[in-house]
Amino acid sequence: MAHNLLKGKKGIIFGALDEKSIAWRTALRCVEEGAEIVLTNAPIALRMGEINKLAETCKAPVIPADVTNMDDLTNLFNKSMEHFGGKIDFVLHSVAMGMNIRKGRSYMDLDYDFNHKTFDISAISLHRVLQTAYKLDALNEWASVIALSYIAAQRVFPDYGEMADAKALLESIARSFGYHYGTHKKVRINTISQSPVKTTAGGGVKGFDGFMAYAENMSPLGNATADECANYAVALFSDLTKMVTMQNLFHDGGFSFTGVSQGVINQMEK
Amino acid sequence: MAHNLLKGKKGIIFGALDEKSIAWRTALRCVEEGAEIVLTNAPIALRMGEINKLAETCKAPVIPADVTNMDDLTNLFNKSMEHFGGKIDFVLHSVAMGMNIRKGRSYMDLDYDFNHKTFDISAISLHRVLQTAYKLDALNEWASVIALSYIAAQRVFPDYGEMADAKALLESIARSFGYHYGTHKKVRINTISQSPVKTTAGGGVKGFDGFMAYAENMSPLGNATADECANYAVALFSDLTKMVTMQNLFHDGGFSFTGVSQGVINQMEK
Amino acid sequence: MAHNLLKGKKGIIFGALDEKSIAWRTALRCVEEGAEIVLTNAPIALRMGEINKLAETCKAPVIPADVTNMDDLTNLFNKSMEHFGGKIDFVLHSVAMGMNIRKGRSYMDLDYDFNHKTFDISAISLHRVLQTAYKLDALNEWASVIALSYIAAQRVFPDYGEMADAKALLESIARSFGYHYGTHKKVRINTISQSPVKTTAGGGVKGFDGFMAYAENMSPLGNATADECANYAVALFSDLTKMVTMQNLFHDGGFSFTGVSQGVINQMEK
Amino acid sequence: MAHNLLKGKKGIIFGALDEKSIAWRTALRCVEEGAEIVLTNAPIALRMGEINKLAETCKAPVIPADVTNMDDLTNLFNKSMEHFGGKIDFVLHSVAMGMNIRKGRSYMDLDYDFNHKTFDISAISLHRVLQTAYKLDALNEWASVIALSYIAAQRVFPDYGEMADAKALLESIARSFGYHYGTHKKVRINTISQSPVKTTAGGGVKGFDGFMAYAENMSPLGNATADECANYAVALFSDLTKMVTMQNLFHDGGFSFTGVSQGVINQMEK
Repeated sequence: MAHNLLKGKKGIIFGALDEKSIAWRTALRCVEEGAEIVLTNAPIALRMGEINKLAETCKAPVIPADVTNMDDLTNLFNKSMEHFGGKIDFVLHSVAMGMNIRKGRSYMDLDYDFNHKTFDISAISLHRVLQTAYKLDALNEWASVIALSYIAAQRVFPDYGEMADAKALLESIARSFGYHYGTHKKVRINTISQSPVKTTAGGGVKGFDGFMAYAENMSPLGNATADECANYAVALFSDLTKMVTMQNLFHDGGFSFTGVSQGVINQMEK
Repeated sequence: MAHNLLKGKKGIIFGALDEKSIAWRTALRCVEEGAEIVLTNAPIALRMGEINKLAETCKAPVIPADVTNMDDLTNLFNKSMEHFGGKIDFVLHSVAMGMNIRKGRSYMDLDYDFNHKTFDISAISLHRVLQTAYKLDALNEWASVIALSYIAAQRVFPDYGEMADAKALLESIARSFGYHYGTHKKVRINTISQSPVKTTAGGGVKGFDGFMAYAENMSPLGNATADECANYAVALFSDLTKMVTMQNLFHDGGFSFTGVSQGVINQMEK
Repeated sequence: MAHNLLKGKKGIIFGALDEKSIAWRTALRCVEEGAEIVLTNAPIALRMGEINKLAETCKAPVIPADVTNMDDLTNLFNKSMEHFGGKIDFVLHSVAMGMNIRKGRSYMDLDYDFNHKTFDISAISLHRVLQTAYKLDALNEWASVIALSYIAAQRVFPDYGEMADAKALLESIARSFGYHYGTHKKVRINTISQSPVKTTAGGGVKGFDGFMAYAENMSPLGNATADECANYAVALFSDLTKMVTMQNLFHDGGFSFTGVSQGVINQMEK
Repeated sequence: MAHNLLKGKKGIIFGALDEKSIAWRTALRCVEEGAEIVLTNAPIALRMGEINKLAETCKAPVIPADVTNMDDLTNLFNKSMEHFGGKIDFVLHSVAMGMNIRKGRSYMDLDYDFNHKTFDISAISLHRVLQTAYKLDALNEWASVIALSYIAAQRVFPDYGEMADAKALLESIARSFGYHYGTHKKVRINTISQSPVKTTAGGGVKGFDGFMAYAENMSPLGNATADECANYAVALFSDLTKMVTMQNLFHDGGFSFTGVSQGVINQMEK
């Protein structure tokens, strides 16, 4: 079902850890649609993951970058432009890390050094990426940038903890930078607010299975998968969506606008 | 706990059916806070209800009005101004009727004559009330108008059917008229999006009890009661909230911004 | 730039009046992307417009239908399925008529018969279309329905009058029906909230040019054109966006999330 | 116009710098309504401001606290409880500092150390305050916490820079903590999204006057003043609003839901 939608386009994909990752599936689909890509991830994630397998399939170089390090990001964009022989048309930001969650600290017992690190990795990193690109003038006009978000940015999901605040911050940064980059260079920036996906990173959260079941039950079309998210990303990288910017786009089978489903009501009456 | 917050203010309360009604509770609280009021309802509701009991307690005249009839509304405002010897300071619109629901017709099998009637009674009636007041110049500057809404205007609750669309329409009318009435006469118009309340009118809806339990479970502070809604209405009629207009205000113990509660997750895992 | 994205898909396009219409541009793009289509409009609009030119280009039959007439809609879906030899994959609802605006009546002086008619043509018609399709089981699984909306559904634009309320109602109907149709048949329903476009229909509104200039100035990427909207519709009809439903999707160059632009501030300081 | 609405209640007011401050006006109104209060601000702000004048009028102790310092906050709550001889009923968080703006750095040229500091002072500080209170069990049931926000959290105002992101983060923290504190202790937490006010702190921002004029023009009731905000805060601290939590409440004369005003359109046509 490839349509050459991204033919001639060049992109950078952040955050492909293993084949369950949304970033991994998106990388595959982008290449299938005719794009050339560069893969990047934190040095430590590169060691843990199996990204070389993906790199081979995608004929893509892997350029390590810590998203909280401006030199790394500068190097990433410079090397990518060198590799492509030109500027970049799309970026996927799929990077998140909940330090307090990982350390087992509840939302009412946050460690603030961890909290800052969570925000830096999961949200401010988008600003760092965009500021780097802007200063290097690394993006073509009408380039499309997507960051992955989650509906906890709008409503509380108790186990999601500080990551909710990180996603709210991420979406605000997408909007804010979207205004400026749009005005100056016609670059568009959006977030996809995706159904929960049982990735290696996300799957470890406490209560994740019960939550997946709830989300499935509350979504008229069911939870959206990583592959479906990859398709949506392709549409948003393509020229079909050039005037969409500064938006948070729910990709969730209707979860976001379902107040309650018949299935959940039935379960509540048990 | 009366504070004379509405001393000297004069208001019209639509929709007090019996002592479970939010409008009933609000009428009592307004009078307790020093307001004078006029009570109104549809002629048929007046026959069914026990409004005379309330009228006595509140020392308020009862002026019948079909909210879809412009002559009735004109009469209501004229008589009210006569009674008060002056203009009106606040209005509570608590009027709704789901014709298709009442006839047992599902959302995918609407009768459109009923549907129009539902919208006329439940939403367009607010426009009719405001247009009548505007043409008669019946509201004082800084008068406060509140209509009761429900979160189904934003998200789908399957059993709520066409009333969801009626509430979305109602909220839009509040916003639209709020702009014009605010600009011309400094009148403010808002909707309160209230927790489900087991009134005589609302309680008959299919699946209502299961739904009340769900809402209670999903609200960090629990469902808001009719008496608590009356308190909120008093605050919004008072001079403490003069610059709040064109808003839909959730009064629901936090339901609206809770994605899922621990209690619901636990129930889903059963 | 055709990609065969809609190859094998069959759709119905409501509301192509002339070559400035968004529906007209969308019809062309859908056919370009490999779809087969049926065109429809109100009998009176068919007489005024030049739809036969479009029908020829698109090799599409024209089937008249008054969107407020259930027999007409039943006939439309039956004839379309006959023509296609199968069910329908996508529908564009681009139908609106502001009766009070057309008659020069301001928002505080509405005629309520006109108001009902405005809502019936511009919003309830979407319900009529969907209910007809549902009862005839006329849509394939994963079919995609789009209705065109405008941001006046969320915020007040004084000259847009009762159409704001009509659009709020339209968006609510899309959400409500999206839940039910999604749950039962995996059909997805969304609205596109589009930049103002100077169509023959929309262009006549008072103050339209000043407003277009304001919107252009307030949109980091500028106003989205009818052709760009057609592209977005193609993406939403395609299989790339299967899990997007019950959404109102802004397609407006960033207008919706711009609080103020530098250009407008400069203009205000004059 | 005092009504004894806060009689018997005890509160902490953060951020009263001088008599133009919203916090200053709120302190005065709370005392007028019968509350006892403690005033607090950063040591440096205490030196610059004239808080002793306010403290005298309010018969309130001043307890310095750097909101990014957990020891200071612990001391503040302990001393306050000692002073009151009991727990606290309300808190006003009116604290913000845009480090990059102050240093003249544009949104596309952020210094990330400053950025972290901006977020810590302006947003994470609310979490610090709440976590401290929660750990000390310093708030009574039904206590009410308000933080001041701005609509830049939802839409971009170019000159507001990183503060937009800080406010989005602040509102998310209010929601998140509102869930947990509400569930555990029936404490309610909201943000007021206030019209621009020419305070000593806010007034220095570039383009502020042009922006104030725009906001005034776009608000059907005009911009809300600091005194009106104080009134709204009183209503939200009172028992009239007990079931309102996790909300962002616009207090802006209708600005938030006005798409454009006639006045702005006229100005655009010049």
